[in-house]
Amino acid sequence: MSDKRDPPPFYERHVFFCTNERPEGHPRGCCKSKDSIRLRDYMKARAKEAGLDRLRINAAGCLDRCELGPSLVIYPEGVWYSPKTKEDVDEIVATHLVKGGRVSRLMMPAK
Amino acid sequence: MSDKRDPPPFYERHVFFCTNERPEGHPRGCCKSKDSIRLRDYMKARAKEAGLDRLRINAAGCLDRCELGPSLVIYPEGVWYSPKTKEDVDEIVATHLVKGGRVSRLMMPAK
Repeated sequence: MSDKRDPPPFYERHVFFCTNERPEGHPRGCCKSKDSIRLRDYMKARAKEAGLDRLRINAAGCLDRCELGPSLVIYPEGVWYSPKTKEDVDEIVATHLVKGGRVSRLMMPAK
Repeated sequence: MSDKRDPPPFYERHVFFCTNERPEGHPRGCCKSKDSIRLRDYMKARAKEAGLDRLRINAAGCLDRCELGPSLVIYPEGVWYSPKTKEDVDEIVATHLVKGGRVSRLMMPAK
């Protein structure tokens, strides 16, 4: 899918954190009701503290994996996580964003 | 950066279209004032018509390339475009999203 003529990556890693809101009682729920805005702000602050300046922690609209949320995806590797707490975010920052590893227990299933 | 143990990609391609709004007169401008919401809706409709069902056209918060906007980035390849018109969007859909090619004239510079 990549092309050897493409420019170098603008960000080394680009994280998209769903902050979508649905009305209360919606059958699919939404990431905002699962604290995604607070968790995204927390990840942004921790990544900054870790000196990860070639990375961006972005807000995003609905990523369509609502039932598994709060949802985030990390590109270019395309790895999806479901962090429920600040401690989960700490682990993703330390293991995946800093070291390039994986936090298996928080990864979403393939489908 | 990818790991051979990672699950297969959930989306074949994932497009993030900045729809961020800043107050009028802000020195960096914003993508919303450059018609990004209409262009994103248009891309979503065209991609659907083209039968691209393993692709998602997402809204995103500020991608921090405001001066070059309207901004979008396509992952996993990490290619950035600046489509100003519906015709530009048509060309990105037909050439990049359908055929996997590149629309050089609309690609953002490396830095």
